[in-house]
Amino acid sequence: MAIPGPDVVRALRGIVGDTHVLTEPDVAASYLTDWTGTWTGEAAVVRPADTAEVADVMRACAAHSVAVTPQGGNTGLVGGSTPTPGDDRPWVLLSLRRLDTVGDVDSQGRCVGAGAGATLASVHAAAAGAGLAFGVDLAARDSATIGGMVATNAGGIRMIRHGDTRAQVLGIEAVLPSGDVFTRWRPLRKDNVGYHLPALLAGSEGTLAVITRVLLRLVPAAARTAVALVGTVDVAAAQRVTRSIEASGRLIEAAEIMTRAGVDLVAAAGVRAPFDSGTTLLVETAGDTGDLSEALAAAGSDVVDAVVEAGPAREAWRLRESHTETIARSSTTPVVKLDVSVPLDRVQDLVDRVDRLAAAAGVRAVQFGHLGDGNIHVNLLDVPLDDQCTAADRVLRMVADLGGSISAEHGIGRAKAASVGLGRDDVDVAAMRAIKSALDPCGIMNPGAIFADP
Amino acid sequence: MAIPGPDVVRALRGIVGDTHVLTEPDVAASYLTDWTGTWTGEAAVVRPADTAEVADVMRACAAHSVAVTPQGGNTGLVGGSTPTPGDDRPWVLLSLRRLDTVGDVDSQGRCVGAGAGATLASVHAAAAGAGLAFGVDLAARDSATIGGMVATNAGGIRMIRHGDTRAQVLGIEAVLPSGDVFTRWRPLRKDNVGYHLPALLAGSEGTLAVITRVLLRLVPAAARTAVALVGTVDVAAAQRVTRSIEASGRLIEAAEIMTRAGVDLVAAAGVRAPFDSGTTLLVETAGDTGDLSEALAAAGSDVVDAVVEAGPAREAWRLRESHTETIARSSTTPVVKLDVSVPLDRVQDLVDRVDRLAAAAGVRAVQFGHLGDGNIHVNLLDVPLDDQCTAADRVLRMVADLGGSISAEHGIGRAKAASVGLGRDDVDVAAMRAIKSALDPCGIMNPGAIFADP
Ligand SMILES: Cc1cc2nc3c(=O)[nH]c(=O)nc-3n(C[C@H](O)[C@H](O)[C@H](O)COP(=O)(O)OP(=O)(O)OC[C@H]3O[C@@H](n4cnc5c(N)ncnc54)[C@H](O)[C@@H]3O)c2cc1C
Ligand SMILES: Cc1cc2nc3c(=O)[nH]c(=O)nc-3n(C[C@H](O)[C@H](O)[C@H](O)COP(=O)(O)OP(=O)(O)OC[C@H]3O[C@@H](n4cnc5c(N)ncnc54)[C@H](O)[C@@H]3O)c2cc1C
Repeated sequence: MAIPGPDVVRALRGIVGDTHVLTEPDVAASYLTDWTGTWTGEAAVVRPADTAEVADVMRACAAHSVAVTPQGGNTGLVGGSTPTPGDDRPWVLLSLRRLDTVGDVDSQGRCVGAGAGATLASVHAAAAGAGLAFGVDLAARDSATIGGMVATNAGGIRMIRHGDTRAQVLGIEAVLPSGDVFTRWRPLRKDNVGYHLPALLAGSEGTLAVITRVLLRLVPAAARTAVALVGTVDVAAAQRVTRSIEASGRLIEAAEIMTRAGVDLVAAAGVRAPFDSGTTLLVETAGDTGDLSEALAAAGSDVVDAVVEAGPAREAWRLRESHTETIARSSTTPVVKLDVSVPLDRVQDLVDRVDRLAAAAGVRAVQFGHLGDGNIHVNLLDVPLDDQCTAADRVLRMVADLGGSISAEHGIGRAKAASVGLGRDDVDVAAMRAIKSALDPCGIMNPGAIFADP
Repeated sequence: MAIPGPDVVRALRGIVGDTHVLTEPDVAASYLTDWTGTWTGEAAVVRPADTAEVADVMRACAAHSVAVTPQGGNTGLVGGSTPTPGDDRPWVLLSLRRLDTVGDVDSQGRCVGAGAGATLASVHAAAAGAGLAFGVDLAARDSATIGGMVATNAGGIRMIRHGDTRAQVLGIEAVLPSGDVFTRWRPLRKDNVGYHLPALLAGSEGTLAVITRVLLRLVPAAARTAVALVGTVDVAAAQRVTRSIEASGRLIEAAEIMTRAGVDLVAAAGVRAPFDSGTTLLVETAGDTGDLSEALAAAGSDVVDAVVEAGPAREAWRLRESHTETIARSSTTPVVKLDVSVPLDRVQDLVDRVDRLAAAAGVRAVQFGHLGDGNIHVNLLDVPLDDQCTAADRVLRMVADLGGSISAEHGIGRAKAASVGLGRDDVDVAAMRAIKSALDPCGIMNPGAIFADP
């Protein structure tokens, strides 16, 4: 019985109000199954309104040894935001979505405070309203929340320019498993007083504390940008094009890669590339379209085709951003999705090996991702259910062989918890566990995520 | 007796060789007193040659409960790199300077591995040799080491452009107090597998582990840069000038501020500003001198005087970088040095308040620093020895009042350990201590640094 006993439920209702504790399976369903549809857990869904309520909920859960999984937009793709399937200990799914306030932009200090449940899109809107920008962006922007992005240290399409989500966190408020509220909230660029706990909470996937508010760094909005779709013969050529643009002194705002299979799939779904090519690079630079055309001309024969667009260039980005959903709809079985990174000189190698593996197994592979970061999203479609674990494991081992990371940006969640040994050695895992025990001594924070055994 | 007993010394000599254990006070002196000359401790100085020796030393120290202070270039300014004065428990000062190898630059992966003891200057040289740059720079570059810079999360003059030292760490090797070697060493931009322990070690000031090697991110070298010295009436005007340059779309590589008192002092020491003005801004931008002149013209009446130089612009930088040493030589008593930051709209306020405080106390104040980060180095000269603690405390309280940080970039060390409560609340300090105990259960790592009581 994963729903806590009646006493606990009563206590929770007393804190957040009756309507914000969901225990009916059909009402709670959208919270308890993840975006990919492959992870479903059982729990009472609790929807606090503010930090004080979160603290009270945590105190109640700690007192009754109830496991807690924090959840934002539930767009994480590694089964981290829903309880462990089949685990029947009492469990609360703590939805932070009601903490969605975005504060006033501090234009001088270039920052904005946002509730954990604020969507990325709402932060972009607030920043833009003040003539600034938030440095992280990703396709799930309308659902993904600031709390979830910090908890996963989201990367996304601007990382090459502005760094990861960790790098945007100037301040944080979080509720520890004890119910104590941890706060650093100063609009400072530099603050070296003791350990940087916000950097530790970034990427902790709900296993250390519940993030309730974040003070986010904002960046100047790029004055002008130009976007090109560039056809190249392969990934290595696309990398050379990117380097060549950079060598010309132009600032790269994004560099995304799509391989043939994905572009064809998206085309079949109605979003067409402007030309027919092996590999498609989407590159965005600061400056004018003329500058970018010139830089592409200088890249020589690596450029097979190119179309340069000005401004936000919706069409080019649509091509890239339609991938995830189109892939999800096109597979006859749940997609095997692996978000990995390899050293930059191994990207071509990885893409080739995955293609061969898929061909040998008679399944389809669609690969795309953040080229500038060596970050490829490997998608295997139509993999029979019984073969999915093996397929995933083979790709992750391949990545480890290439000296890469089994999780570039989505985190470990439950999907990769058993594979952490491919990415971290024993001393490292022991150190992580020591920190986990130090901050969450009773082990109630999102058990099963990151660390496989309890 | 802070030098460990003969058995331990014998064991240490067995590990690193006789000549690398220094117990004679005069031989050890340069290690045992810090750069400012105000902090002196007692210890056996141990100089291991490599990671394996560091691990063996740590095992020996753990077995005998010997305290360990790691030391790099000993340029830290907060008494963190030397043992606690007057503490007579057995102590080892572990100098990492012999671990000074800088590896081959990985041009494709844009990174380089460096031993903890490698100087910043040697890393700059290696990066430049490959047509790249390392994103952190500071005036102590010929002595400060990579290990020390990571351990303090050094900021410096390029932070506005490339972030802090933490943001440059792609991989790390460190020896835990147990002697276990912690390693993450993959040339990856994105690697979200579990907690980001490198980010935790960054800024840990030798209280958690001994850093032995670091894999550093490199950045493209700026194609062209221009530097201007700009005279303004005050700090707020200098901030407006910086904003105006940025608004013109130019990329700011550095923005440093010097107030009148410092410029005059440095001038008296022979490094002259090209004009006479209240406040001097040094701003470096990517691009041509013409572009920068144009941007300065657009800044209007906030610019009282300006001289634009091309290229590395040694003279302008000399003016700025002569400050620390000139100040040290000019004071009749040890300088009260406080490295603080405040919200950007409070910088003028801070500078004014410090000037008033100094005037009232009849001492000299020299303030300069990293304007873009709201980071001011407050220097009080000629403060009588008996008044130094009070003077420091008053400035730190002023900073806390203004919502600032009592340590922007130098860390806490021993100098500010008693003031941590001005920067962090109880929940925060308790969380830090929990992490300290988790990774250093016997408390042998740099006791007295960051946390005042043992
Ligand atoms: C179409 C699509 C595109 C995507 N593109 C990218 C991309 O480019 N880059 C990228 O990095 N990711 C991407 N993702 C993955 C996902 O959007 C990110 O991981 C995002 O950061 C998750 O945010 P969320 O609010 O949905 O978190 P959730 O899915 O709700 O939770 C994710 C994890 O964070 C924890 N968590 C959530 N909120 C909190 C909180 N307040 N406190 C503590 N822990 C919390 C959860 O317990 C869970 O472990 C994409 C997903 C989709 C569906
Ligand atoms: C002229 C001058 C200018 C400066 N300018 C700046 C500036 O602009 N920005 C800035 O941030 N700082 C500045 N500093 C301060 C100083 O240079 C930095 O803090 C630097 O990072 C210290 O490096 P170090 O190797 O000298 O470390 P040390 O002084 O030897 O040690 C500093 C701290 O780090 C720990 N430590 C050292 N090495 C290791 C290791 N390998 N493993 C674990 N812990 C270790 C020590 O225990 C100590 O707590 C300046 C100093 C001077 C003298």
